[in-house]
Amino acid sequence: MEDFQVGLIGFGTIGAGVVRLLRENEYVIKKRFGRRIRLKKIADIDVTTPRGVDVPDGVLTTDVNEILNDPGIKVVIELVGGYEPAKSFVLTAISNGKHIVTANKALLATHGAEIFNAANEKNVGIGFEASVGGTIPVIKTLKESLAANNITSFLGIMNGTCNYILSTMTEKGGDFSEVLKKAKKLGFAEADATFDIEGIDTAHKLAISVSLAYGKNVKLDAIYREGISKITQNDIEFARELGYRVKLLAIAIERGDAVEARIHPTMIPHDHLLSSVNSNFNAFHFNGDASGPVFLYGQGAGMMPTASAVVSDIIDIGRDCRTGISGRVPLRSFQEDDIDDVTFLPMDDIVTNYYLRFSAVDRPGVLSKISGILGTHHISIASVIQKGRKKEGAVPVVMTTHEAREKNMRQALEEIDKLDIVLDKTVLIRIENGALV
Amino acid sequence: MEDFQVGLIGFGTIGAGVVRLLRENEYVIKKRFGRRIRLKKIADIDVTTPRGVDVPDGVLTTDVNEILNDPGIKVVIELVGGYEPAKSFVLTAISNGKHIVTANKALLATHGAEIFNAANEKNVGIGFEASVGGTIPVIKTLKESLAANNITSFLGIMNGTCNYILSTMTEKGGDFSEVLKKAKKLGFAEADATFDIEGIDTAHKLAISVSLAYGKNVKLDAIYREGISKITQNDIEFARELGYRVKLLAIAIERGDAVEARIHPTMIPHDHLLSSVNSNFNAFHFNGDASGPVFLYGQGAGMMPTASAVVSDIIDIGRDCRTGISGRVPLRSFQEDDIDDVTFLPMDDIVTNYYLRFSAVDRPGVLSKISGILGTHHISIASVIQKGRKKEGAVPVVMTTHEAREKNMRQALEEIDKLDIVLDKTVLIRIENGALV
Repeated sequence: MEDFQVGLIGFGTIGAGVVRLLRENEYVIKKRFGRRIRLKKIADIDVTTPRGVDVPDGVLTTDVNEILNDPGIKVVIELVGGYEPAKSFVLTAISNGKHIVTANKALLATHGAEIFNAANEKNVGIGFEASVGGTIPVIKTLKESLAANNITSFLGIMNGTCNYILSTMTEKGGDFSEVLKKAKKLGFAEADATFDIEGIDTAHKLAISVSLAYGKNVKLDAIYREGISKITQNDIEFARELGYRVKLLAIAIERGDAVEARIHPTMIPHDHLLSSVNSNFNAFHFNGDASGPVFLYGQGAGMMPTASAVVSDIIDIGRDCRTGISGRVPLRSFQEDDIDDVTFLPMDDIVTNYYLRFSAVDRPGVLSKISGILGTHHISIASVIQKGRKKEGAVPVVMTTHEAREKNMRQALEEIDKLDIVLDKTVLIRIENGALV
Repeated sequence: MEDFQVGLIGFGTIGAGVVRLLRENEYVIKKRFGRRIRLKKIADIDVTTPRGVDVPDGVLTTDVNEILNDPGIKVVIELVGGYEPAKSFVLTAISNGKHIVTANKALLATHGAEIFNAANEKNVGIGFEASVGGTIPVIKTLKESLAANNITSFLGIMNGTCNYILSTMTEKGGDFSEVLKKAKKLGFAEADATFDIEGIDTAHKLAISVSLAYGKNVKLDAIYREGISKITQNDIEFARELGYRVKLLAIAIERGDAVEARIHPTMIPHDHLLSSVNSNFNAFHFNGDASGPVFLYGQGAGMMPTASAVVSDIIDIGRDCRTGISGRVPLRSFQEDDIDDVTFLPMDDIVTNYYLRFSAVDRPGVLSKISGILGTHHISIASVIQKGRKKEGAVPVVMTTHEAREKNMRQALEEIDKLDIVLDKTVLIRIENGALV
């Protein structure tokens, strides 16, 4: 049978990984797929930098049109990243009848509807397993393995940089800024890490996942998001004492016709599987109404793990091409007619448990004052830690609460932070128990 | 679009779960699949016992031919279990051009080649996600998500009964026989639990997984297998002290052209994800040469989790039917021409770490005698625990070893167990480190 021809746009780390994987595992891929995958062309603006992989003469080009206009090329692998020119490349390829495989979460989270609509019109496939959770089969699990389920909730550690930083702070100590420095040195964080540590990358992945889990158009900006830069070693230590670990979690919960979606540092029970996800690993914890919990774990990024997801998508689309079909599985998991705009539950209305760290003067009556205000706002206290004695300055008073409404919490903290016995803004970290069962 | 018609043979717990799931989640299934799944007929020899689900008039029958011969029924769901008459039902359905969805691991592990060949001849699909790991997408991950990888190893906790017993012994104490009694009471073990506790059920699942991971015909009996009935609270405690947990692991490791496959109680590091798999949960830890570790976790059995896998397979096959194709993904993961007989590495040749518990008299020179014999057989000791003093009878001497060859270990223990200072057969539990990275 003739080779299955694909073209690659973007010859960076992941691109080089795809080249290497197609070469090194050619034999096993052919034994499973039944055809050889031939990487016919690779386009990049930079064709001189060595990428650590051999490329036959004539394959490398600076002219992307050699891929976009080649009728022999069935699949275009877009690994340029970002919005433009990636978006134009993808849309041109689609309009030329080519299938797409991409790892570009930013593009799909922002312009997904436009791209999926274009693909549906031209009856081409879009493989994007690599865009969420790297090598972990998140997309396939949502679209296929859990297809018979209502997804009642899912929680994910979706960003390796954040997880590396928080795990290291937990295991080896150190404050955020010094651990971030170390992460950069080790290649676990980019020089400008804003995108990761502020949860923007996580938001892209959550937007895509919510869209697949619930059949919804998702506005990225509507997802509540807090990064990890304010997490202190202090809070990590108190979390440990309370039996928790701090993780940057992306959380989605079905709330009737609405979806609760939020990204923030979260305390989770230390003996939950998500707490054992260390270093730069990612993990996803789904709850289906029939399946019960399904937990998936692996490398969310990196050269070869991401290449593994990219090539599995090429094979998936290649299997459609081989049998002469397309649209076997809806691109966005649900039938297009059934997809509508998501309604997110307003943050004011979420109900969860809280960890609060007050910076209070060490004076009799402080605890009663704080707990009094919490009580007025229908917030009941689950535990209190108060340590140390200080003549001057603040001492930390740590509380965890039973379930409370975010709006009440916000109002209570506004009042508390105005008290003259409270010297600094109260630290709030949400605790997740419910959706983790 | 017209309903997708399926027939169910076997109206037990899982069968009732399928009926319930198709009814309760009809709406979300239709939104994903695009068609309604209509359960046209249910056949069982017993049509009088209440199953806790409503079945419309005319659907229930004692005559399996009403399903096997109905030209409108596209998929036959086989939930009879065991070898016969399940096998005959399946083969007849196939020869009538019907696709199969089954949870029957015993049937596939024993007669898989015959059934898959028949299916290939008639161009029908066989969905068997529910046969390994229940609701966990093990089959899809092996056949599709990791398709670009050489699977260098995989390890699994594949039996909920064993995991419940070992987890309970670890967390709450108690000896094997009393915990088994409790498991039976709670419905986590059958009245005759031999099948589970001797690792036979696990062997079925490992045989199926090995066949998919390596493209091999597997002889079930050739898989080395030890059950958990000899595990004592004593060993659980020593494991804890050494930083391990005891699990019944199914292990497969690629060894050149051979495969190392074995099932036995195994000590694994307490901080590994597999050690956090408690109660009756299952988990699978794959290592792909590109993907790195991929860990999957969920319910390996039970009414609704298994039904979730069964219905996801119906949808998968339904998607093929809808687009008018079959054979999109090879039934056994590899192209049929590429499948050959597996060569298992002889147990004598495996190399692993060991935990040994000697029942020795408490007398000077015992340790030197034992370690001397181990040394003669090229086995070096990693740690020793010796506790308690006893005037009469045996004291436990516990050792862990560095990597050693099984054959050497067997020979050494034969010599040691003949010593007059050793009063009972030495307990051996293998330790897994290597394949867990």
